[in-house]
Amino acid sequence: MKTVTNTSSREAPFPLEISQLNAVESVRRVGPLSRSDIAERLSYSRSKITVVVGDLIDTGILEEVGDGTSTGGRRPRFLDFKADFGYVVGVDLGASSLDIAIADFKGHILDRKYMPSDVRDGPDAILALIRNIIIDRLDYLDIPPTKIYGIGIGVPGPVEFSTGLLIAPPIMPGWEAFPIKAFFLETFPSAVVIVDNEVNVMALGELRGGAGKNEENFLFVKIGTGIGCGIVCNGQIYRGSNGCAGDIGHICADQNGTTCHCGNVGCLEAMAAGPAIAGLAAKAALARNSAILAKYLEIRNGELTAEDVGAAASEGDRVANEIIRDSGRMIGEVLASLVNFFNPSLILIGGGVSHIGHQFLASIRRGVLHRSLPLSTRHLRIDTSPMGPDAGVNGAIALALEHVFVAAS
Amino acid sequence: MKTVTNTSSREAPFPLEISQLNAVESVRRVGPLSRSDIAERLSYSRSKITVVVGDLIDTGILEEVGDGTSTGGRRPRFLDFKADFGYVVGVDLGASSLDIAIADFKGHILDRKYMPSDVRDGPDAILALIRNIIIDRLDYLDIPPTKIYGIGIGVPGPVEFSTGLLIAPPIMPGWEAFPIKAFFLETFPSAVVIVDNEVNVMALGELRGGAGKNEENFLFVKIGTGIGCGIVCNGQIYRGSNGCAGDIGHICADQNGTTCHCGNVGCLEAMAAGPAIAGLAAKAALARNSAILAKYLEIRNGELTAEDVGAAASEGDRVANEIIRDSGRMIGEVLASLVNFFNPSLILIGGGVSHIGHQFLASIRRGVLHRSLPLSTRHLRIDTSPMGPDAGVNGAIALALEHVFVAAS
Repeated sequence: MKTVTNTSSREAPFPLEISQLNAVESVRRVGPLSRSDIAERLSYSRSKITVVVGDLIDTGILEEVGDGTSTGGRRPRFLDFKADFGYVVGVDLGASSLDIAIADFKGHILDRKYMPSDVRDGPDAILALIRNIIIDRLDYLDIPPTKIYGIGIGVPGPVEFSTGLLIAPPIMPGWEAFPIKAFFLETFPSAVVIVDNEVNVMALGELRGGAGKNEENFLFVKIGTGIGCGIVCNGQIYRGSNGCAGDIGHICADQNGTTCHCGNVGCLEAMAAGPAIAGLAAKAALARNSAILAKYLEIRNGELTAEDVGAAASEGDRVANEIIRDSGRMIGEVLASLVNFFNPSLILIGGGVSHIGHQFLASIRRGVLHRSLPLSTRHLRIDTSPMGPDAGVNGAIALALEHVFVAAS
Repeated sequence: MKTVTNTSSREAPFPLEISQLNAVESVRRVGPLSRSDIAERLSYSRSKITVVVGDLIDTGILEEVGDGTSTGGRRPRFLDFKADFGYVVGVDLGASSLDIAIADFKGHILDRKYMPSDVRDGPDAILALIRNIIIDRLDYLDIPPTKIYGIGIGVPGPVEFSTGLLIAPPIMPGWEAFPIKAFFLETFPSAVVIVDNEVNVMALGELRGGAGKNEENFLFVKIGTGIGCGIVCNGQIYRGSNGCAGDIGHICADQNGTTCHCGNVGCLEAMAAGPAIAGLAAKAALARNSAILAKYLEIRNGELTAEDVGAAASEGDRVANEIIRDSGRMIGEVLASLVNFFNPSLILIGGGVSHIGHQFLASIRRGVLHRSLPLSTRHLRIDTSPMGPDAGVNGAIALALEHVFVAAS
């Protein structure tokens, strides 16, 4: 029997019944609604909704605003969500950075802190750091920790979503099965704490407030040190049977390719992610195939990054351009398989490597079009994520908000 | 503006209101329910459900059965669906066969007719044939055509599900955009007519009454002349943005492979489907690499099938076994990409080629395990479809039933 879950085990933030939670969640999602709007959405009777809304106004979660247009009878009054009744925290925990934001119940960011960090420092150090930053910023905002009703966290590793535990994370030594939720509940006892993989969180950010807002089925592909994919299916984040859907970094991109750290040959990540791009460029520099790359290698003391290769390409370096084109093509060809299978309407490309030049996106597009069926690309858009580095923290806030007013299962 | 849709444009079969449709659909899906069960499921008030159910009993769709266990007050009476109030037809239209079944409202098959046919004869001939068979069987069963309230049809080509029209079907000349629904409405004016791609229909068959019954996320892979995939996502058939999700036959299986009829190189279908298996075997027979295959080639007058290769393999032919193993491995490796991406809990292998021997399934399994991540295969089962050739017609009946009691959009 599972006892840990991703949503329960918190103290009830406000003793709300299911019908009250449903009513609040309707207003949160849709915006100001009249009593009869809410009643209709939830199929509640007029008398029931009057009681439910009355209680919520007494609690201070909902408030009456403005006057609706009359349709003959009494003018309906609208009910809105009280933004400052409570707050949530969004945490985007990257491999080498931390991005933490505090937002009100309407998702408006009140404070945000970004800093470099190393996830390999382990959960004790990193989580204490996050907690201290949150407490410091709450102090500054004059918000008591008990007013934090939700914490959403994106992490760079595979998460069993139902429990919020990391499962064999390759780049997060020491984090396996660490009780992240319990850690935060100690300091923020009213909060629901939700942990998810970072690409799912980024996809959620784009779904709720970005380029994915009107899309039912889309992919968010993050290309950085690794390559991962957040999947939106029928307007919801899809996590698969074990919560590891979207792990596309180890799909075979080249049957004659290099060996990946996972032991297989030609994995997309090993062939086309940031380190592969940087590695090929360093090799070309050392072989004296590119003067510009050799210059960068010298400036960087022998350690190139994908961004350096992008810079060299924008200076017109042929070799750098070729490396970027090859990487984009391989990513595009793998995405083509997924397009044939999943038939999305949109693919958003994010992550650090997504900004290394127009050539990269163009090559991805060409790779997809080259190997996809015409019907499946007829209405397909492929773009860089317009939310960019904000997708993670925005998604983490959305993740928290979506679980505050949901009955614990 | 679209005017054709996959569900509307029929005469209302029985003038039911939305609340009545909802009540009937609850009982159809779940089985006998008390009035308060239905009320709770639909969040209807006690007085509303009394009226709704009363009307449905008057119409003859629901009937009272047995007595429930009392929980203190009056003993609740259960309401059940009247199986013989109406009937549906399921049609599995294959490339070279027709499978037609008539079922009652509970999905029990009353009559079934299977026959070879050639879809290339075109829609006029084939649809008239289907209609005549249905009329003949209804006559035999003494059921008037107006009692047919739903017709579900699986077809071997891409379907725009919202309209039920075929879009550029490669093996169905003359069927593009043919108004299949309108054709059947002429003879069966009370019916909702739903057309879908055959693999989606097969996946639905397994989802409702087969091995997929308790699975939220699974794949049904049909391997025959082509290779296609039905996707079940969160307990529902997933069709993608253009309705062409699951078109996996043209995913690249071998970058140095043979050229496919689509113009690309190494498509899974060109490398591993029935014709590829038969073609490789014929080549080996002509090159005198296998005496057993040469024997089959002679018996078959120079035209081998995948089934012949399976028979040769079961006679111990090394070359036949190798061909089957290679095909299975390639299918498995492509499925591995989809497993990493979609993380299903089950893959069902169906279609004619799925029965060419244990070696085939074993090779598919090996291919998947070889290239998938451990977390995504931890609970993954890969099996041949236990429903086998019945999946299509069972799914077509389920497709019809699921649309009878749904309000036309």
